Amino acid sequence: MTIGISVFGSGRIGVIHARNAAKAAGARLVSIMNPDRALAQPLADELGVPVVESAEQALSDPAVDAVIICTPTSTHVELIEQTARAGRAVMCEKPLDLAIGRVDRAVAVLEETGTPFMLSFNRRFDPGVAALRAAVEAGEVGALNMLSLTSRDPAPPPIDYVRQSGGYFADSTIHDIDLACWITGELPVEVHATGSCLVDPAIGAEGDCDTAMTTLKMPSGVLVHINNSRRAVYGFDQRIEAFGSGGMVQTANQHNDNLLRTTAEGFASQSPLKHFFLERYEASFAHALDEFVSALRERRAPSATQRDGRNALVIALACEESRTTGRVVRPRF
Amino acid sequence: MTIGISVFGSGRIGVIHARNAAKAAGARLVSIMNPDRALAQPLADELGVPVVESAEQALSDPAVDAVIICTPTSTHVELIEQTARAGRAVMCEKPLDLAIGRVDRAVAVLEETGTPFMLSFNRRFDPGVAALRAAVEAGEVGALNMLSLTSRDPAPPPIDYVRQSGGYFADSTIHDIDLACWITGELPVEVHATGSCLVDPAIGAEGDCDTAMTTLKMPSGVLVHINNSRRAVYGFDQRIEAFGSGGMVQTANQHNDNLLRTTAEGFASQSPLKHFFLERYEASFAHALDEFVSALRERRAPSATQRDGRNALVIALACEESRTTGRVVRPRF
Amino acid sequence: MTIGISVFGSGRIGVIHARNAAKAAGARLVSIMNPDRALAQPLADELGVPVVESAEQALSDPAVDAVIICTPTSTHVELIEQTARAGRAVMCEKPLDLAIGRVDRAVAVLEETGTPFMLSFNRRFDPGVAALRAAVEAGEVGALNMLSLTSRDPAPPPIDYVRQSGGYFADSTIHDIDLACWITGELPVEVHATGSCLVDPAIGAEGDCDTAMTTLKMPSGVLVHINNSRRAVYGFDQRIEAFGSGGMVQTANQHNDNLLRTTAEGFASQSPLKHFFLERYEASFAHALDEFVSALRERRAPSATQRDGRNALVIALACEESRTTGRVVRPRF
Amino acid sequence: MTIGISVFGSGRIGVIHARNAAKAAGARLVSIMNPDRALAQPLADELGVPVVESAEQALSDPAVDAVIICTPTSTHVELIEQTARAGRAVMCEKPLDLAIGRVDRAVAVLEETGTPFMLSFNRRFDPGVAALRAAVEAGEVGALNMLSLTSRDPAPPPIDYVRQSGGYFADSTIHDIDLACWITGELPVEVHATGSCLVDPAIGAEGDCDTAMTTLKMPSGVLVHINNSRRAVYGFDQRIEAFGSGGMVQTANQHNDNLLRTTAEGFASQSPLKHFFLERYEASFAHALDEFVSALRERRAPSATQRDGRNALVIALACEESRTTGRVVRPRF
Repeated sequence: MTIGISVFGSGRIGVIHARNAAKAAGARLVSIMNPDRALAQPLADELGVPVVESAEQALSDPAVDAVIICTPTSTHVELIEQTARAGRAVMCEKPLDLAIGRVDRAVAVLEETGTPFMLSFNRRFDPGVAALRAAVEAGEVGALNMLSLTSRDPAPPPIDYVRQSGGYFADSTIHDIDLACWITGELPVEVHATGSCLVDPAIGAEGDCDTAMTTLKMPSGVLVHINNSRRAVYGFDQRIEAFGSGGMVQTANQHNDNLLRTTAEGFASQSPLKHFFLERYEASFAHALDEFVSALRERRAPSATQRDGRNALVIALACEESRTTGRVVRPRF
Repeated sequence: MTIGISVFGSGRIGVIHARNAAKAAGARLVSIMNPDRALAQPLADELGVPVVESAEQALSDPAVDAVIICTPTSTHVELIEQTARAGRAVMCEKPLDLAIGRVDRAVAVLEETGTPFMLSFNRRFDPGVAALRAAVEAGEVGALNMLSLTSRDPAPPPIDYVRQSGGYFADSTIHDIDLACWITGELPVEVHATGSCLVDPAIGAEGDCDTAMTTLKMPSGVLVHINNSRRAVYGFDQRIEAFGSGGMVQTANQHNDNLLRTTAEGFASQSPLKHFFLERYEASFAHALDEFVSALRERRAPSATQRDGRNALVIALACEESRTTGRVVRPRF
Repeated sequence: MTIGISVFGSGRIGVIHARNAAKAAGARLVSIMNPDRALAQPLADELGVPVVESAEQALSDPAVDAVIICTPTSTHVELIEQTARAGRAVMCEKPLDLAIGRVDRAVAVLEETGTPFMLSFNRRFDPGVAALRAAVEAGEVGALNMLSLTSRDPAPPPIDYVRQSGGYFADSTIHDIDLACWITGELPVEVHATGSCLVDPAIGAEGDCDTAMTTLKMPSGVLVHINNSRRAVYGFDQRIEAFGSGGMVQTANQHNDNLLRTTAEGFASQSPLKHFFLERYEASFAHALDEFVSALRERRAPSATQRDGRNALVIALACEESRTTGRVVRPRF
Repeated sequence: MTIGISVFGSGRIGVIHARNAAKAAGARLVSIMNPDRALAQPLADELGVPVVESAEQALSDPAVDAVIICTPTSTHVELIEQTARAGRAVMCEKPLDLAIGRVDRAVAVLEETGTPFMLSFNRRFDPGVAALRAAVEAGEVGALNMLSLTSRDPAPPPIDYVRQSGGYFADSTIHDIDLACWITGELPVEVHATGSCLVDPAIGAEGDCDTAMTTLKMPSGVLVHINNSRRAVYGFDQRIEAFGSGGMVQTANQHNDNLLRTTAEGFASQSPLKHFFLERYEASFAHALDEFVSALRERRAPSATQRDGRNALVIALACEESRTTGRVVRPRF
C-alpha cells in the first residue's frame, strides 16, 4: 500500500515535507495545497504534482490518503478537523495551536474520528537524539538522574516572527520539552523557568525573552535542565546530556565536515556547525515522515501523538507563566 | 618578610594546608594545633614542627603571623575571633559557619579589628577555572549571557558527614555559588533550587537531597545553572561553560593521564578522572595559599573575603529555602 | 539521458554496486551478469532485474550503456576488452590486474577505442577524504610538506584470499597510494617499504606481510608515509593527515553513532568504529557511481582513470620490490 | 645524603638545569662554571651560588659531587673525561659528540672509571611519554606492532645553529630515535630515512634537510615511523602513537590552557600549543634531574646511559647515510 500525500502549505517547512514525501519509500506525493497558487507553483513543478487551492479540493481527490499540515499555526486546528472529518490521516507541524482550548478541540475530533495522527516533533528522529534515548532505555546510564538540553539558535528571528510565535517557550523550548518528556518517559510535576532579554531589545519590548533557563522536576525525582538562546554566534548549538547512576551519555554537535584544522590562528578548530534546523535536522525530517508513513502502513500509532503535543504545550505555557509570575508552576495536564 | 603560619586542625584538609605551608614561597610552617596531640603528631613529625594543644598556645608564639583554620565548622567563628583579637591574619576553610548570625559576628570582629582574612574558596585558584574567568573578563565570549556549572562528586559521603554538613547547598553547592558570583561579578536577585534523593535513601531520610539543580538570575539578566550530584561513577565531574554574545568557553575535566586509549572494549577512552577534590584541586589549594601569603606580604586584601563567604552562604540558604518551600526566593544580602 | 547499467559479478562488492545502480539518479540497473545464475538470483529478485549468464548476453542488450566489473581480478582485463569492443562504458573494481603487462593491454584497448572508463578508487569519494583534498587544494595547509595515511583493517582476511591478493601492497596499500598521488598531485620518484608478519603466521608463510610502512618521496620534495595493518582490534582505522607550511588538516574516524559515553569502566568512550569498508565507505561507493554516471552524461572523463590505476599498481609493485629486496626503488611509470 | 652539583655552562639549557638543581629534593646547587664569568653572573646571583671559571676550579671544591654538562657539544667529551677522572658523577646534555670515535672515548673513560653517568634524554621523563611507555610495558596495546612519533618544531633555528648541529637527524631526530628504542626495548636492524628542504632554502644550501621521514625496523618485526619538520606554524607538535595486537595508545599535545573556545571565527578551538621545548618539556627536565639525583643517592644506574647515547647516535648517523645515499642502512652498534 502506497500512501498518497497532500502537503498543505509550501513555505520553508512545506518544501521540506513535500520533497521528502516525493521520495519516501511507501509514499507518493499527490498534491500541494496553497490558496495562493503562485507561491506553490515552483515547488509543484519541481516535484511534478498539481497545486490545489483549498483543503476541500485536496481532500476531494481519492488518491489522497494523508495530509501534512505546514500552514500557519492559527489554521492548524481547522485543517485537522476538516481532514479528520474527511477520513484522512494527518501529520501536523508543531505547535497544534497556542491555546489549550483549541488544542483540546483538535484532540477531541481526532479521538472521536479515530484519525491516525502524528505531530511533527522531528527532533525525536534525529539519529543522535534517537541513539541517546535508546542508550538511556537500554540502561547505559543506569537509572536516569538528570537530563540537560542545550538549544541555541544561530541568530534571532525577525521581530514579526517573534510577535506571532506564542512566546519563546511555546515556539522553541517546546522541542526540548517534548524531548525531555520522551526521553524520561515522564511529565513534570513542577516547572520553573526564567528568561532575560540579552540578544535583541525588540524582543524584550514585546514582553518576550531571548535567553531562558527551564527546570522540570519529574515524579520520579529526575531533574531536567533546558537552556535556550536566540543567538549563538558559532551556529546552531544542539546538545543533550543524560546522567544517571551508571554514567553519562552526551550527543555531539554536527559540523559541516569532519576535518580537524590546525593553523597558526587557532589550534584544532573544526568547521562551523551546521547552520540551522533545515541543515541540522535534515535527516530527522525525513525520518519523521518515514515513521508517519510506516505507522499508517502498519496500522499502528506513530511515535508522536496529539496528546504529546498537548502535553508539551501545557508545559510550555507553564514555563511562560513561571517566567512572568516568578513562581514555580505545577502544570495540570 | 616570611609569614609564620600555624595550622589549626590536622584532618584531611589540615594535612594539605600544612604541607603547602611547609613549602610555599614566602611562608614558614611554625606549628600545628590540635587539642588531641596524638592525631597531629605524625604530620608534625613529617614536617618537622611542634604540635600545640590550644589556640592560646599557638598564638602565644611570636613567630606565628597567620593562622589557617581547618577545624570543624562549628569552631570557626570562635577561632576567627580569638585569632583576630590576637592580631594575627586568618585563612579559614569554608563555610564560615552555617548560621548567618554567627557569620555576621565573625565578619564584625574581622572588620572591627582590620584583620587580614581569606576564605578558602580554593576552586577560584584552579588553573582552568582561573583561565575561564580571565577569558570572560577579557571579553572572549562578548557579553556574558549564561553560565553553567556541573559539579558531581564521585561517591556520597558517610551519612554522619551529611548530618552535620548543613545540607547539600551549604556544604557543596556553595563552591559553585561562589564561582558563579565571582565569574559574573554579580549577586543574584532570584534563586530557584530543586532537589531529589536518587543516590542514597539515608540522605533523603535526613531531609536532605543528593541530586540538585539551581538557577540564579543576576541583576544584569545573566542566567546561571548549577547541577550537583553526590555520585558520578566515572569520577569527580567538574565543568564550567560560559556563553555570551561572542561565543563560548568551557573548562575540561582532568584525567589521571593524557593518554588516549583505543581498545576492543571501547573506542578512544581516556584514563579515569582525577578521583576527588584532594587530587583534582591539589594545585588550587597550593595556589590559594600562595595568594594568602602574597596578599599578606603585599599588604592588600586577598581574593576571597569574609563578605564573599557571607554572600555565598546567604545564597546557599536561599537555595535550601527554595528547595523545601518549592518557591522562588529573593535573597537578602 | 538515463544510463543503463549491467553489473558483472554479484559478490560482496557486486551487491553494493547493483543496489547503488538501482537507485542512482540518472542511472538504471538493467541486468546482473553471473555465469552461475543461482548466485545472482536473490540480488536480481531484490532489485527486479534479470540475471544474464555471460558478458556477450549482457552486451547484446541495447539497453546496456555501461558495465560495472566486479568479477575476480583475473577476469578484469578480458571483460574490459570485451566491453570496450562492444562500445560500452566501463567502471572496474581495483586492481585492473596484478601484472603490468596485462594492465597495459587494457589501457591500450581503452585508449584505442576511446572507451569512457573509471577505476573504482572509491575512497576518493569519501566525504572526509574529499574534504581533506579540497582543503589542501584550497591552500588551507599552505604548501604541502608531508602526508600521512593510516589504514588498518579490523581483522585479517582468510588465507585463501591472501594467496590470490597479489600481496599486501597491491591488494590494500594501493588504495592509500592512489589517495597519496591524488592528494599531492604527484607521482613518487622514490619508494621505500618494509613489512613484518605480526598478525597471522600463515600470511608470513605465504611470503606476504600483514604489517607495513611505506615512504614515498615526491618530485617536489613532499614526503608521504603510509602505515597498514591487517588487524586493528578497535575497528577499521582510516585516517589522513596533511601537513604544510600553513598548518595541518586531519580526517577523523567514523563511529557507529556520535554519542560520547562516560561510565565507570572507561571515561569518555565512543561507540566502536564502523566495522569495515562496506560500512565505512558506504557513501563513497555511492558517490563513486554518481561520478561515473555524471561523467558519462556530461561526456567528460571521470575522476579516476585507467592511467591512475596503472600508476598505483606500478607504485604498489615497487613497494613489494622494496620490501623483498630491502632497497629503495625508483618506480618507472 | 645531599648531592652537590656544579652546572657547566649557563646558556639556555644551563639555566634550566641550574634552576632545577637549586630546588630539587636531595640536591644542592654548588656552583656554575663558565670561562666567561660575566655570562654566568646573573644566573649565579639569582640562585645565590658562585661562578667558577674552569672545570678544574669547580672540581677542586669537595662540595661538588656531580656535574651537569651544558656546554657546546664539541667540549662534552673532554669535560666528561676530566670530571670522571676527578671522581665525580656526570649528567651530560645530548649529544655526547657528533663523532662515534670521540663518543667511544667518553664511553671507555666512563666505564673504566665506573663513573655514574646519565645522558639528558629528558623526553623520557615527560609525564605523557612515560605514561605511554608504561602502558606499552603493561601490555595495554598487547604485543606492540607499530610506533609512530611526530616531532615538529615551531620554527627553524638560525642557520648558524644548523651549521654546527651535526645535521637534522643527529640534532633533532635523535630524541625520537632514543624514545623509539626505549619504548620498544630494541635496536633497529634496518634504517631508512629521506629528507627534503621545504622550510628554509639556507638549510638546503648547507646540504641539510628540514623535513624528514625515518623508518626503523626492529629485530622483532616492530616497525617505527618518525616524522620531523623544522616548522609547524601551530606550535611544537609532539605526539606518539603505539599500536599493537590489543589496541592503541596515543599521547596528546599540550596547550597553554585547557579551555575550549567556540567563537564565530572558528568552532571549538583550543589555545596554542606550548611554544617549544623549554615550555613543553619543562616538567621533563626537572624529572630527569630528579632521576639523576635519585640514582646517585640510591647507588643505581640512571635511566639513560652513555650506551643509550651512543646507540642513538649510531642510528642518527645511519639515518643521515640513508638520506644522502638513498639506500637502506643496517646500523652497526
